[in-house]
Amino acid sequence: MNLARKIFEANNLFNLIEKGDKILIGFSGGVDSVVLSYLLFKLKDVLGIEIGLAHFNHHLREDADEDEAFCIDFAKSLKIPIYVERFDIKSLKGNIEENARKKRYEFLQKTSKKEGYNKIATAHHLDDLAETMILWFVRGGGLKGLSGFKAYKENIIRPLITATKDEIRAFAKEQHLNWKEDYTNYDETISRNLIRHKVIPILKKINPNFLSTVLQESIILQDEEAFLEDYTEHVIKNIDVFDVKSLKQEPRAIQRRIVRKTFGTKTFQKTELVLKLLENAKQIRLSKNKILEVKNGKITLRMI
Amino acid sequence: MNLARKIFEANNLFNLIEKGDKILIGFSGGVDSVVLSYLLFKLKDVLGIEIGLAHFNHHLREDADEDEAFCIDFAKSLKIPIYVERFDIKSLKGNIEENARKKRYEFLQKTSKKEGYNKIATAHHLDDLAETMILWFVRGGGLKGLSGFKAYKENIIRPLITATKDEIRAFAKEQHLNWKEDYTNYDETISRNLIRHKVIPILKKINPNFLSTVLQESIILQDEEAFLEDYTEHVIKNIDVFDVKSLKQEPRAIQRRIVRKTFGTKTFQKTELVLKLLENAKQIRLSKNKILEVKNGKITLRMI
Repeated sequence: MNLARKIFEANNLFNLIEKGDKILIGFSGGVDSVVLSYLLFKLKDVLGIEIGLAHFNHHLREDADEDEAFCIDFAKSLKIPIYVERFDIKSLKGNIEENARKKRYEFLQKTSKKEGYNKIATAHHLDDLAETMILWFVRGGGLKGLSGFKAYKENIIRPLITATKDEIRAFAKEQHLNWKEDYTNYDETISRNLIRHKVIPILKKINPNFLSTVLQESIILQDEEAFLEDYTEHVIKNIDVFDVKSLKQEPRAIQRRIVRKTFGTKTFQKTELVLKLLENAKQIRLSKNKILEVKNGKITLRMI
Repeated sequence: MNLARKIFEANNLFNLIEKGDKILIGFSGGVDSVVLSYLLFKLKDVLGIEIGLAHFNHHLREDADEDEAFCIDFAKSLKIPIYVERFDIKSLKGNIEENARKKRYEFLQKTSKKEGYNKIATAHHLDDLAETMILWFVRGGGLKGLSGFKAYKENIIRPLITATKDEIRAFAKEQHLNWKEDYTNYDETISRNLIRHKVIPILKKINPNFLSTVLQESIILQDEEAFLEDYTEHVIKNIDVFDVKSLKQEPRAIQRRIVRKTFGTKTFQKTELVLKLLENAKQIRLSKNKILEVKNGKITLRMI
């Protein structure tokens, strides 16, 4: 039961689980959540915790109800409480993957509150982290995206963050566990699959320790992102961000973050455009009907 | 001559070339350096610059002397001065690729100084930048590695930084230029080739604007890296970095950078180990014969 060590390793690095925790596990019935649930079930006395499962039936796949039945059976067989909600994600407008994620987390938060759980655990692992970091790098997510998701965020914890998919599958087989395979394929998933099956195997050839490197990078970059954010917030509180002279005295990296926060610029081009006001531009066009202009050393917004 | 615009774009972003510059171009005879030289030759009156070529014959390939002759012919045909040096890289110990790079830059610096050039230009382009950033990401180069190489560093400029390899090749064909292909393959090159031929094409499928995204990421991350470095240096000058209490007050991201600089820790594990002294550890073993210990709130080094 080597994978148990990974839980303790993650705990050592991030302090995810404390004695007395009541943890609600996001449970899809896939191999990751089955392994996480089984592991926490086996370790619950050692860790001094209680656990419950929460299954969100998205009605996205033909076998969604079969999956739900599997989840209920799994919970029953181990005598773990399970909470189930059904929701037709396709009835919502917009990106399916995005909506599914949002609704799933809403359900987890609502259920944990109602049922008295103080933490929510998801089964994200090291391969997920690597894929997320690469996806954000490719799409241009800046330092925040590059640093990946967090091992903990508010009441959400990810105890498998230091375990690889291979280790999780090996554990599932070794323990003769059953799970449901997810064959769904949305847009987000297609990009992720390309990274999973085509990109990461090559990166592992270049660096056989690629996955553990990713974890270290993520820890370092998350701390650097947090510091840059704190520093920026501190500056925003202490200077007049509309005053060209004050803004000009800040380092470029901080100017850029201030502009993004203050003027809501979403693209690199727009942010750089606003920064031109600090050099020589008298006015710039922020959007169709918004003009930023410098008057008496102050940046002001004019609607046209 | 669309590629000329890229030179002006790079200049606009990074102020690489100024009127009156005397620029020595690192000239291998490959398509990148042929295109850079030809472009700067065509633009020299518009830009108000003078140019020269510098060819370093590494004696690495069988056709190294043929390449040298090609370079001299190219320079003669356009009446550009050319400086050539021959050096047998294989005679040096250590990593060939690393030694070649070092010796090449030594030659460029020496020649520019001797012949009165104030800048050195290399033909690195946007694909090179993307490959470099990915290589460092895979190997774990932190924010510095991830931000790639600079468009300018001291007297070295890279005017093709915003141009892609495709654009460079297209220009070379359109202008009926000749060049020498480089078929060498060293270790570094193998990893780079995997990234070039196997990884980047997939990343372009996920984001068709991947290369321009990379350029923006690089600009943002370089500024953030520069700020973090400046901030760290400022802290080092202003606090006693051996004093546990003072060091503890700094953000984790800055603590980590201070530890790397002060104690020369090269790996993530070693750095984190030193950081344990700020929490509860009384002493840690830095290496075989070095122990760091906390005495009266001060970190001290003990040799054993």
